[in-house]
Amino acid sequence: MTKNETIAKFLDGLASEAPTPGGGGAAAIMGAVGAALVSMVANLTIGKKNYEAFEADLKEANARAEAVRAELTAAIDEDVVAFNAVMGAYGLPRATDEDKAARAAAIQAALKQATDAPLRAVKACYEVIQLSAIVAEKGNLNVISDAGVAVLAANAGLRSAALNVFINAKSIKDREFAEIRLGETNALLDLAATKTEEVYDVVRGKIGS
Amino acid sequence: MTKNETIAKFLDGLASEAPTPGGGGAAAIMGAVGAALVSMVANLTIGKKNYEAFEADLKEANARAEAVRAELTAAIDEDVVAFNAVMGAYGLPRATDEDKAARAAAIQAALKQATDAPLRAVKACYEVIQLSAIVAEKGNLNVISDAGVAVLAANAGLRSAALNVFINAKSIKDREFAEIRLGETNALLDLAATKTEEVYDVVRGKIGS
Repeated sequence: MTKNETIAKFLDGLASEAPTPGGGGAAAIMGAVGAALVSMVANLTIGKKNYEAFEADLKEANARAEAVRAELTAAIDEDVVAFNAVMGAYGLPRATDEDKAARAAAIQAALKQATDAPLRAVKACYEVIQLSAIVAEKGNLNVISDAGVAVLAANAGLRSAALNVFINAKSIKDREFAEIRLGETNALLDLAATKTEEVYDVVRGKIGS
Repeated sequence: MTKNETIAKFLDGLASEAPTPGGGGAAAIMGAVGAALVSMVANLTIGKKNYEAFEADLKEANARAEAVRAELTAAIDEDVVAFNAVMGAYGLPRATDEDKAARAAAIQAALKQATDAPLRAVKACYEVIQLSAIVAEKGNLNVISDAGVAVLAANAGLRSAALNVFINAKSIKDREFAEIRLGETNALLDLAATKTEEVYDVVRGKIGS
């Protein structure tokens, strides 16, 4: 499993001329890093003096962050599966007209899968951004910079996954399918940009920088 | 070594209530992910037809990306060392006036180290942003989205490392030392923001999204 490789080995694989892991896996890792930092801030706040009033909210944020982190860690591998399906479809025989039709259909099916996989990552990263807002507002001041890192990681993951939606949606012939995904992605990109800068400003305000 | 842990284990450690690895390590990982993707795009372009004119530039970009990736991977561990030095200094005895003076001096020295470590990461991430611009301009169109992910990862790493400069510089009594670092950090934050959006727009233009 890709997710169980060492960080250094993963980075070597990313840097190599092997096409996977690539930007899709990198997007998922950034989102997962953001989710992990949401949990860290929650864990370093729950049970601490002066934060009793936020305990229930932070426990809920932590549980949601753990679930979305599991989803994004799994997405590292899903990206490889989706990429391989597209490459496999392009490699199908095209000797006869029947071959060609079957190959074209397989490519289109694989491209749809390779568009939906990063769109799920976009949505998961958006949830991490919302959770970052909770820990930036209610988390332990001693680790408030980590809430800022959480939102930056999640937004970079979201924008990165969006690029993978765009590049795969481009070649989809079912334009209704594609336009629905592009619309959702662009809407979340805009919402995420605004929310991320809000959370970053809250954190900088609390740091006093 | 932190960098040799598995990704999943690293993320578990990040999420836990252990203070390290934390946002500093996450910042370094994001920068390293960006550097690795610069190398990947270069590696998937060098030797390819129609890109011969860019070969020398891409080889140089790849070599620089590998060096800065090694620096950022090492920074994951340096962040832990710097954090432990600060915590160790705060834990020194304060029974006598001499103790107190020695402890205060140790805290200040450790905070300076804990400011310079993320500032080095800020500079390394900025170099990754510049390298991303080269591969976005000259890299293989088939993997151009990965150049976009590279710049997003590097900028998120830079802004995250900047938060760690800010939070540590805040408690430094030698204000001249602190202000020099804050000035450098803010200047690179501004340059990075502009450059990142330029590169992202180049990539989106090439994807046609």
